[in-house]
Amino acid sequence: MQPNEFRRHGHAVVDWIADYLENPEQWPVLPGVRPGELRSSLPPSPPARGESMDAVLDDFRKLIVPATTHWNHPAFMAYFANSSTGAGVLGEALTAALNVNAMLWRTSPAATELELLTLDWLRQMLGLPEKFFGVIGDTASSNTLYALAAAREMHPELRIRQDGMPGRADMPKVAVYCSEEAHSSVDKAVMTLGFGLSALRKIPTDDQLRMDPEALDAAVKSDRRVGAIPLAVVATVGTTSTTAIDPVPAIAAICEREKMWLHIDASYGGTAAILPEMRYALEGCDRADSLVVNPHKWLFTPMDCSALYTSRPELLKQAFQHVPEFLVVSEGEDVVNLMDYGISLGRRFRALKLWFVIRNFGVEGLQSLIREHIRLAKRLAQWIDDDPTLERLAEVNFSTVVFRHRPAGMAANELNQHNTRVLEKVNATREVYLSHTRVRGSYAFRVAIGNIHTTEAHVRRALDLVREAGRSK
Amino acid sequence: MQPNEFRRHGHAVVDWIADYLENPEQWPVLPGVRPGELRSSLPPSPPARGESMDAVLDDFRKLIVPATTHWNHPAFMAYFANSSTGAGVLGEALTAALNVNAMLWRTSPAATELELLTLDWLRQMLGLPEKFFGVIGDTASSNTLYALAAAREMHPELRIRQDGMPGRADMPKVAVYCSEEAHSSVDKAVMTLGFGLSALRKIPTDDQLRMDPEALDAAVKSDRRVGAIPLAVVATVGTTSTTAIDPVPAIAAICEREKMWLHIDASYGGTAAILPEMRYALEGCDRADSLVVNPHKWLFTPMDCSALYTSRPELLKQAFQHVPEFLVVSEGEDVVNLMDYGISLGRRFRALKLWFVIRNFGVEGLQSLIREHIRLAKRLAQWIDDDPTLERLAEVNFSTVVFRHRPAGMAANELNQHNTRVLEKVNATREVYLSHTRVRGSYAFRVAIGNIHTTEAHVRRALDLVREAGRSK
Repeated sequence: MQPNEFRRHGHAVVDWIADYLENPEQWPVLPGVRPGELRSSLPPSPPARGESMDAVLDDFRKLIVPATTHWNHPAFMAYFANSSTGAGVLGEALTAALNVNAMLWRTSPAATELELLTLDWLRQMLGLPEKFFGVIGDTASSNTLYALAAAREMHPELRIRQDGMPGRADMPKVAVYCSEEAHSSVDKAVMTLGFGLSALRKIPTDDQLRMDPEALDAAVKSDRRVGAIPLAVVATVGTTSTTAIDPVPAIAAICEREKMWLHIDASYGGTAAILPEMRYALEGCDRADSLVVNPHKWLFTPMDCSALYTSRPELLKQAFQHVPEFLVVSEGEDVVNLMDYGISLGRRFRALKLWFVIRNFGVEGLQSLIREHIRLAKRLAQWIDDDPTLERLAEVNFSTVVFRHRPAGMAANELNQHNTRVLEKVNATREVYLSHTRVRGSYAFRVAIGNIHTTEAHVRRALDLVREAGRSK
Repeated sequence: MQPNEFRRHGHAVVDWIADYLENPEQWPVLPGVRPGELRSSLPPSPPARGESMDAVLDDFRKLIVPATTHWNHPAFMAYFANSSTGAGVLGEALTAALNVNAMLWRTSPAATELELLTLDWLRQMLGLPEKFFGVIGDTASSNTLYALAAAREMHPELRIRQDGMPGRADMPKVAVYCSEEAHSSVDKAVMTLGFGLSALRKIPTDDQLRMDPEALDAAVKSDRRVGAIPLAVVATVGTTSTTAIDPVPAIAAICEREKMWLHIDASYGGTAAILPEMRYALEGCDRADSLVVNPHKWLFTPMDCSALYTSRPELLKQAFQHVPEFLVVSEGEDVVNLMDYGISLGRRFRALKLWFVIRNFGVEGLQSLIREHIRLAKRLAQWIDDDPTLERLAEVNFSTVVFRHRPAGMAANELNQHNTRVLEKVNATREVYLSHTRVRGSYAFRVAIGNIHTTEAHVRRALDLVREAGRSK
């Protein structure tokens, strides 16, 4: 593509994005495609000769966009939001243009230093202590896995890096703890790291689906009795299912006493702590060894951008540093080479978009958006509480509301099936996209508010659609 | 940012990118910054009020760009190339705008189906068999780790997913094999997966730094004798140090006999197989269980985009599938949910840029670029071979040349220090960026050609700088 062609197509793409982000409601939130439909509409083999970008962009508009679930749609409330923003898009475009690989400081000083600086800005916004060193990973799943890998390095006597996971007759097994409501990424991490799912203790929760610290304490003691090593606890600030907040201070006290690594999964809920009135959500997290929070969720930064903080960066580095000859450089001991803090050697310049977003919105601008989402969620909760045919199933700690339809006279054992049908009907309208969960066995809707375009009218409409679907046969 | 503001800034960004990609030589390839210099020039805390994008983009141009190592510079020959291209940048901008998370088919049918289709296009381009199922990961490091995790699932009797890595008194240890020249990502993978580095057998190489299949065979037999389970072999097509090609057919035969998983790291070299005359580089790879190749290296696609192929997708899924209630959907058994094939739940729409690149260049367009890079490398090799003060230290299998300066009369034990100094001088010019390696202990320069802008003049100039630095005291 010649530079003048790039200019022409680039300007067309910018105009398309401007229109798209101005009015994401021009498409239904859910596309009307069946599995395989898009693929079968495209050539099964690559073109021998190059095609004009006009043709490619035309296909993008005609085939790709209509087969897309619109995460930018203000009625996308199925999963924690992923809003795209102008500042974020410009950051990603420039990242793709520079296309640096920040594996070593030398291979991209700007990407390395801006990552450290921007995550320090975010740390200040969250009220976390200075000892927290932050790096950007792709997702909370990877970052939770990294934290548990670092936790292994608290036990040099186990020689896990060298000899693998213990479990020989002469070595104790290790154990990891999280609540029954913790994210599936904890399960995936213990599977992947070679602990095995059987090393994961799912601790029971209280009436608000928060980890029960006494049950944690008992589980740790029971493991000690049989000679296992309690290694780490993953506490959650804002569980995916119902946004419950585990009692971090009590959990931290147990971790300190037992010398366990404390990792906090605040990938969604953590962002709320940029509000002074929500700072309490991270209470006790200053005592954690690591914490993950995702700017690509509720901080208007395009995917992927997940922040991993740790007060023990030396252990994280110990878990992942392995330098081959061709990457040996001599910039000095205190120079950070980002490749040392995770699995991936190659690293995109992901800090640029986050830096753009924080600067363009300002802390106050971001705060007012988050504050409004929480207000909308409380409003929705009030509407639900005022309606005898609806039942709220969890506290609204952030911007997510969990509830079900409960028509008068319906037997308890019919409710799950009824609500499953209601959700199918609601999503089949393609006007709104909600998800579901189970709260102590009860099928429930999840309405996660966090899109930058969502207004009270969208939330109201979602509720009306639930009511309509609930009434219809 | 209002839509009209986004338009204005977007057009300015497009024009900047057009200028940048038209003439990346307007900056030195290596920046003249010291560690910490950029960071200390930026405010240590985030702004309370939002700033105009004009100010942000101004800082980008004035502070970020000069602190960047320019991977797009035609004299960037330090590491396997990462060229940005117009088609790739437009794809990334649109990916950031749509900002979908393709964890489930339902959360982005287009991203899911285009990923499978585009990787099938690439599979055809590489001449790999139809049985290879491909998904996109961030880097070869992650994809190699995923392959080794899938390999564990070949042994359901070990119950690794459930019970963790074996090693109990009643269970055999497992072993993984690669050559002494394999990439450090294999070491990182065995550390992370809980095998431990001691489970990794580094097999000696022949005079061309290729894995010795007889030595592999002996190592496997020796492990069998002590009751260990030979699990997997990682063979490399194009090692990072010298681009050696392991003898895959002989290795495949051993893997088949021993029922070991064969993973091919072709992250750089694999791309050459899009040329009919280079197809031989992947000889035997049709017998592999998995293979990784990186379009973000030598296929003009911005980072990150690493393709993982496997003929056993069901085992990859077994290693990583774990579905919580809120992600249970019922689209049917044959619908692919990309979250099932790796650690990360969240997944960007990475296929879009690759689809744009393949369509805009066409297979023939991509072939002619790769062919030219290989020609340039052979030409450089010839110049080196014609100069008695230079010594080539490896075959030129692809587009990378490994050599050293060897002035008449210099003692053998002085050569390493001499060449270290020469490389420092060459890179200090900031006109060219080369890297180094060690070939059987000898310090050597690596010249990796693969940037879309690199011409014979750039390669010639790099060699002249080496000669100059070699002559100077």
